[in-house]
Amino acid sequence: MSTADGTWNVYLSGEIHSDWRQRIADGVREAGLPVKLLAPVTDHVASDDVGANILGEEQDQFWRDHKGAGVNAVRTRTLLQRADVVVVRFGDKYRQWNAAFDAGYAAALGKPIVTLHDSELAHALKEVDRAAMAVGETTEQVVEILRYAIAG
Amino acid sequence: MSTADGTWNVYLSGEIHSDWRQRIADGVREAGLPVKLLAPVTDHVASDDVGANILGEEQDQFWRDHKGAGVNAVRTRTLLQRADVVVVRFGDKYRQWNAAFDAGYAAALGKPIVTLHDSELAHALKEVDRAAMAVGETTEQVVEILRYAIAG
Amino acid sequence: MSTADGTWNVYLSGEIHSDWRQRIADGVREAGLPVKLLAPVTDHVASDDVGANILGEEQDQFWRDHKGAGVNAVRTRTLLQRADVVVVRFGDKYRQWNAAFDAGYAAALGKPIVTLHDSELAHALKEVDRAAMAVGETTEQVVEILRYAIAG
Amino acid sequence: MSTADGTWNVYLSGEIHSDWRQRIADGVREAGLPVKLLAPVTDHVASDDVGANILGEEQDQFWRDHKGAGVNAVRTRTLLQRADVVVVRFGDKYRQWNAAFDAGYAAALGKPIVTLHDSELAHALKEVDRAAMAVGETTEQVVEILRYAIAG
Amino acid sequence: MSTADGTWNVYLSGEIHSDWRQRIADGVREAGLPVKLLAPVTDHVASDDVGANILGEEQDQFWRDHKGAGVNAVRTRTLLQRADVVVVRFGDKYRQWNAAFDAGYAAALGKPIVTLHDSELAHALKEVDRAAMAVGETTEQVVEILRYAIAG
Amino acid sequence: MSTADGTWNVYLSGEIHSDWRQRIADGVREAGLPVKLLAPVTDHVASDDVGANILGEEQDQFWRDHKGAGVNAVRTRTLLQRADVVVVRFGDKYRQWNAAFDAGYAAALGKPIVTLHDSELAHALKEVDRAAMAVGETTEQVVEILRYAIAG
Amino acid sequence: MSTADGTWNVYLSGEIHSDWRQRIADGVREAGLPVKLLAPVTDHVASDDVGANILGEEQDQFWRDHKGAGVNAVRTRTLLQRADVVVVRFGDKYRQWNAAFDAGYAAALGKPIVTLHDSELAHALKEVDRAAMAVGETTEQVVEILRYAIAG
Amino acid sequence: MSTADGTWNVYLSGEIHSDWRQRIADGVREAGLPVKLLAPVTDHVASDDVGANILGEEQDQFWRDHKGAGVNAVRTRTLLQRADVVVVRFGDKYRQWNAAFDAGYAAALGKPIVTLHDSELAHALKEVDRAAMAVGETTEQVVEILRYAIAG
Repeated sequence: MSTADGTWNVYLSGEIHSDWRQRIADGVREAGLPVKLLAPVTDHVASDDVGANILGEEQDQFWRDHKGAGVNAVRTRTLLQRADVVVVRFGDKYRQWNAAFDAGYAAALGKPIVTLHDSELAHALKEVDRAAMAVGETTEQVVEILRYAIAG
Repeated sequence: MSTADGTWNVYLSGEIHSDWRQRIADGVREAGLPVKLLAPVTDHVASDDVGANILGEEQDQFWRDHKGAGVNAVRTRTLLQRADVVVVRFGDKYRQWNAAFDAGYAAALGKPIVTLHDSELAHALKEVDRAAMAVGETTEQVVEILRYAIAG
Repeated sequence: MSTADGTWNVYLSGEIHSDWRQRIADGVREAGLPVKLLAPVTDHVASDDVGANILGEEQDQFWRDHKGAGVNAVRTRTLLQRADVVVVRFGDKYRQWNAAFDAGYAAALGKPIVTLHDSELAHALKEVDRAAMAVGETTEQVVEILRYAIAG
Repeated sequence: MSTADGTWNVYLSGEIHSDWRQRIADGVREAGLPVKLLAPVTDHVASDDVGANILGEEQDQFWRDHKGAGVNAVRTRTLLQRADVVVVRFGDKYRQWNAAFDAGYAAALGKPIVTLHDSELAHALKEVDRAAMAVGETTEQVVEILRYAIAG
Repeated sequence: MSTADGTWNVYLSGEIHSDWRQRIADGVREAGLPVKLLAPVTDHVASDDVGANILGEEQDQFWRDHKGAGVNAVRTRTLLQRADVVVVRFGDKYRQWNAAFDAGYAAALGKPIVTLHDSELAHALKEVDRAAMAVGETTEQVVEILRYAIAG
Repeated sequence: MSTADGTWNVYLSGEIHSDWRQRIADGVREAGLPVKLLAPVTDHVASDDVGANILGEEQDQFWRDHKGAGVNAVRTRTLLQRADVVVVRFGDKYRQWNAAFDAGYAAALGKPIVTLHDSELAHALKEVDRAAMAVGETTEQVVEILRYAIAG
Repeated sequence: MSTADGTWNVYLSGEIHSDWRQRIADGVREAGLPVKLLAPVTDHVASDDVGANILGEEQDQFWRDHKGAGVNAVRTRTLLQRADVVVVRFGDKYRQWNAAFDAGYAAALGKPIVTLHDSELAHALKEVDRAAMAVGETTEQVVEILRYAIAG
Repeated sequence: MSTADGTWNVYLSGEIHSDWRQRIADGVREAGLPVKLLAPVTDHVASDDVGANILGEEQDQFWRDHKGAGVNAVRTRTLLQRADVVVVRFGDKYRQWNAAFDAGYAAALGKPIVTLHDSELAHALKEVDRAAMAVGETTEQVVEILRYAIAG
């Protein structure tokens, strides 16, 4: 039986201030896995400004953010719905509520979730981790999980 | 990470008496986006007459329209369900209730919606715009939203 | 076999500037039907101002409408999802895109739709009417349809 | 038309270290609204210990949390699915990732969301707020939204 | 443990020219089962004429039927969606394609189906029977199945 | 805008004793449409005997049919779920309850339906036709509907 | 806030040769919980014979079982779909594949699952337990979980 | 009409201690069927140890299994959701509750199921078999069913 079961879409949600996505991309490429990695826009400034940049500046910061979040959601909702597996990364900075939101969204759609965070965040993340199929601390572990899940 | 996340199906609903679809098509092509644009039949006469043309003439205009709307719905329902993103255009002429209908249909299916209309229609369209992730006034803005959503 | 099959939730969407909802309510009560009529808030000013009134005034009319539409949607989405049947009324004034939006939303959820409008609107409403199970011109007809559907 | 459209189930997700739920309960009762308020267990110690208390102590804190989160999820998943409207409260302490998770879960199910938080959290919460129909800063505003949505 | 698990909605689809529904109603009542029996309108003439009667006469028989079928569908779709169990009766006269349609509709919604027909129809009904959980030949059998399913 | 919107899966349900599927296949090929035609096994004997042939002979005709219907359903359920559009053909012989069952199944899944039958069957098929987007009498009409829906 | 959040439907799947259901029923009653306990028919002989008893004897044991399983499924599918929480009990005798089947069915519907079995079965049940929110060994634990989930 | 209706994803669930998957793979290849066979990881030791191997060793066997089952579920849930048809094999050793769980999961998703087991297991498997479209005893029968379903 073939170990290659078609392309897997893996959405990488969460932290944008470290190189974890690149490390997973490197690991997946080295392992030769048939994976298409999906992600939100990770350029913080571009992501924050996209609403104002495309649709016009706003005076009120709340609506400026609202516009930007809408444009980003065109991307993230589409890719989340296209994903086979959702990896959610929580870093030690920022609150990353959008990562937890994505996890809840994926859980309701019945998609397998893998969380990735340091152990000191485990207590605060226990509800999210409970909804996940695996909880990793390193990108190497995530790559190994994908390798096992896809290539057996 | 690749910025090309596969082909996106974008359904362009609404106004058929201006060149907005062509302008988006031009913009998408120039931007080199992996987008397949889907649309209803935009030839007004062909669309109005298709029921009578294929299935036989009707004396009663109501049933003539009913037949035609059914044949058109074979196309539009299929393409709406296939769409990743739905763009809904409201022009200043005609009531375009079918565009608002499509927006409601897409909203119930959880698909991201982008509306496109002049600002003077904003008050009348507030419920539809509230269900959208972005509200643009120009086709350039729609292309930019697609570019950002797809290519990051 | 009993003709009373439990309470029916009937959502009355659309026009707010005539007494059509009251006439259906009167007809339903006179017919003794086990119907709970659901509706959006029909006080035009209250509906337009609710966002600003509760959540704070806005300088920009677009966001003022956006806020108001959101608060109204808390009501309308909940009631639409609770409805067994959705009646959608189009009047000759205003564009009532929200009525067509509700029809599309209901259609995607598989709920039976009844439209109510004058015959001169029929051509413009052909796509919405095609998605409906019945197209009436008078509130008496709507009451009769409910009576037949519920009491046999 | 009656303003009483049946009982509304309103789930109150999030912060457990302030009296916001009680204040909403007081406001809802004073307004005479037909609302059933649903909530997670808000006794922090009871919630943290429930897994170990019922199913046996664990040496490893991670699995202790995992067990507890599972028992809590029997409650929260059931109530979230039963909710008509989900109110999500973010306080200034703790990360409340479970609140954001609940918001994502509710969004995927198409349930109307109302968020409640101070304005200084708005930027960090912009993705969650974008998925909400209303963003309030006070419990009085939430009660008013419920009053409007339910009683018109 | 109580044997009474709440009220069961049982939809009785199909043949309208024999007394099978009444016999099931009698049997259910004698057995004291907490069953609400749902059904299409079984007055053949009323059912055929309802569209023309309420919404206006049609010259073309096809559209006359179409109108009538729509009004009947307001009832049948609502009741089918409300049903816990769907009983589908095929008689020896008429083709009763609507009964088979209802069975397909119920099957796609995951509702348990019981078919009721003479053995000589079994070969022609094999696909519908295959989608059913039980195939009976008498109304007594249907009542017994309901009694067992509900009261144990 | 391209008129080629990807491949359309069209399921051809119903009558197996005439050449209607071949005529649609010929028409689709001549029109150059990107259509994949799906169908049940149309060899009557092979279809009737498949259960006994593969899984062992049965003495009781009912269970022989039951087995065969199950094996056929592995094919038909999969293809129905894969279909974009479902064409349902009713001939003048046989009762073709499985065709009506397929129509109900497709309707519940929200797939556009086209029925194909002679006008003398229209009254008996009114409920099925009401759930369809188009009602044709000839295979040429079906091909024209597909051509319009796909190629515009 | 009230601790009574309405009635909870709890389906008790699995082992029928011990008194575990009665013990949970006793515990729930003593705790005064608003729980409606649902269950398959637990009389082994009645359950095995119901198909033959109601629908006629079969010579072939396979079809005799098939008939009986169908009638039982009218009950179990309805109650599983009605359940808020599903408790699945595995005993040390018999294979209870139907219990695992019910767990899979409940998991796909997103319903919270609690498993109940001795620790020596844990390795063999690891996939089912992984899909559960809690894994108990005693009926007292199940009652405590329900008490916590419902009454807080 | 072509007999090749695109690639079919067939998930092979259950027994891992015999060569049944390989025999189906051989049969499918010899028949030239466009089938992609999907399966869990069938290396018993690798499957049992994967959680500990990737995510770290556990002292408690229950949590060691829990971790492993989670990683395996990333694979199995994804492939089950991707499957067109699910074949479930029960051998005479081990309890294979995960196979029955997969069958229940597939049934709730409406996917056609084929079971494969010796006749002496039939009584114990009657509920699972009732949810299947075919019950085979040999891999040759499964291959024949796939051949018929796919190639006609």
